[in-house]
Amino acid sequence: MSTTGQIIRCKAAVCWEAGKPLVMEEVEVAPPQKHEVRIKILFTSLCHTDVYFWEAKGQTPLFPRIFGHEAGGIVESVGEGVTDLQPGDHVLPIFTGECGDCPHCHSEESNMCDLLRINTERGGMIHDGESRFSINGKPIHHFLGTSTFSEYTVVHSGQVAKINPEAPLDKVCIVSCGLSTGLGATLNVAKPKKGQSVAIFGLGAVGLAAAEGARIAGAVQQVIAEMTNGGVDRSVECTGSIQAMIQAFECVHDGWGVAVLVGVPSKDDAFKTHPMNLLNERTLKGTFFGNYKPKTDIPGVVEKYMNKELELEKFITHTVPFSEINKAFDYMLKGEGIRCIITMGA
Amino acid sequence: MSTTGQIIRCKAAVCWEAGKPLVMEEVEVAPPQKHEVRIKILFTSLCHTDVYFWEAKGQTPLFPRIFGHEAGGIVESVGEGVTDLQPGDHVLPIFTGECGDCPHCHSEESNMCDLLRINTERGGMIHDGESRFSINGKPIHHFLGTSTFSEYTVVHSGQVAKINPEAPLDKVCIVSCGLSTGLGATLNVAKPKKGQSVAIFGLGAVGLAAAEGARIAGAVQQVIAEMTNGGVDRSVECTGSIQAMIQAFECVHDGWGVAVLVGVPSKDDAFKTHPMNLLNERTLKGTFFGNYKPKTDIPGVVEKYMNKELELEKFITHTVPFSEINKAFDYMLKGEGIRCIITMGA
Repeated sequence: MSTTGQIIRCKAAVCWEAGKPLVMEEVEVAPPQKHEVRIKILFTSLCHTDVYFWEAKGQTPLFPRIFGHEAGGIVESVGEGVTDLQPGDHVLPIFTGECGDCPHCHSEESNMCDLLRINTERGGMIHDGESRFSINGKPIHHFLGTSTFSEYTVVHSGQVAKINPEAPLDKVCIVSCGLSTGLGATLNVAKPKKGQSVAIFGLGAVGLAAAEGARIAGAVQQVIAEMTNGGVDRSVECTGSIQAMIQAFECVHDGWGVAVLVGVPSKDDAFKTHPMNLLNERTLKGTFFGNYKPKTDIPGVVEKYMNKELELEKFITHTVPFSEINKAFDYMLKGEGIRCIITMGA
Repeated sequence: MSTTGQIIRCKAAVCWEAGKPLVMEEVEVAPPQKHEVRIKILFTSLCHTDVYFWEAKGQTPLFPRIFGHEAGGIVESVGEGVTDLQPGDHVLPIFTGECGDCPHCHSEESNMCDLLRINTERGGMIHDGESRFSINGKPIHHFLGTSTFSEYTVVHSGQVAKINPEAPLDKVCIVSCGLSTGLGATLNVAKPKKGQSVAIFGLGAVGLAAAEGARIAGAVQQVIAEMTNGGVDRSVECTGSIQAMIQAFECVHDGWGVAVLVGVPSKDDAFKTHPMNLLNERTLKGTFFGNYKPKTDIPGVVEKYMNKELELEKFITHTVPFSEINKAFDYMLKGEGIRCIITMGA
């Protein structure tokens, strides 16, 4: 029996209160509205950004909320006006979007869509501001427009990348966020040439993905024990520490060095350097989501994996059933492992 | 009678003391040594950098000295090992060089030659540390390896660009420094696309040359009266004021904005910005001599003028005979005009 146009009742891991374990609940998921897609999530993984907003230290608290933004699934139904996706498509929901129609989407250089750019403060859908999740009529807030810690979720079609249906969703789900952020920082922004040295600051999932980008580009990953030959050719900063940002910039070679900032700093931080460091032909750039456009470029990252150009297995250190999702939080809080895959059906 | 291998006696404008008018003297110019070229200067122009070191406020004083580094001339003779230049070649001496053999010269991205990079503290030739200029046996210091305020000068062959002999030296002499610095900052570093907006800070010769680069690229030069549409596409900072540098960076559009720093800051300045300005996909780059390699690229800038793609006449606001060179200093100190051409024969 088709579920199209019907409310779906399914399991979701709801966060009722900041920092408290998620609670497995039966939620109602409304049908997708205009430009929306309802997705059956098969695999999701936990990223630091989920933990950061779950802890909600300093951000506007927005609870109850369904977290989750790295995931892979299958389109269950589509709302009005959705022409590029249909039920059965294999997709990755993405925490930032691509409307296709704003100056950023028209620019070859930007992926910071005016309409669908990441918004951590929004708890409802962009179409009407309302949530598609509820429990006994009480709305549950969305997170990043994705909320993948649910067996079904509703996402704006501009935040949905259609991928190769042969791709194993339990692996490529990590392409949704951290993997692409680090990989693209190196491949799309730092752009090392073959044989060039790349220093990477921070070796969580994003930093390791930046290193994977360096491997793919044929560059040399360098441990900065001692600075030789005037500096490294490229650096990628993935910690968000302001000291590391400044070091990452000042360690690149004059004449051609490029430093790329990925890590998100604190609100009060100031990047500070002597301008001569710039005038000596160093470049400082920042990147967001590896400069990938979600719909246009992410299917290609999945293809890199399918062609065995990109390795994903080494990032996946744990797997838990959906019912044990809080274990994934424990692993991350303890700094154990890189990515934990949460299997929805299990 | 050939002057090759002989000492040449000629006129030079010598600075005996910081900030004092130059004095026209008869100097002896020794023959070029290994990898050196002796050049008959026909036209030279005055640049702020000459005035800055003439004032010598804060720098190591190095007097008596022959200033001058924007010029056009003809090779009189060449020293041992010089194979790419011969007597009669039309050339521009350049204040920074290209040895062709160091990592910077091998890099496509850098022009900061390890051997011949600008050195404002050096008063002699690189080969033996000695000066080729003297008056009654007393050596007179060189400036930037060029010292073009002399009818003859000796320059390292790596600092000599051979240009089209049809090019009028009274115009293309300004390509030696300021013109190329600004032009290249836009064309080689900011790289605006057709129709993009370019904000230029500072409208001396370098800033106007940056604007000329924007015109050539088909970009829109913008007066920042009111910031609309999220910022400009490119900015080029040509003042050296740290406040202007920070503004130039912060006024570029997120997603694709590129700010290029050209102006030389004070020693104690700190460039300071919130790192989110970078993470929103802005780029900050510095440039030196417009990223042009002196020998490889400067002949092509002269060709742009010959093809009527580049305008030079609008930069030349004054002309004086060599005997009145101190007038050129007056014009610059009063902020009158852009470039003053000094005619050596006159």
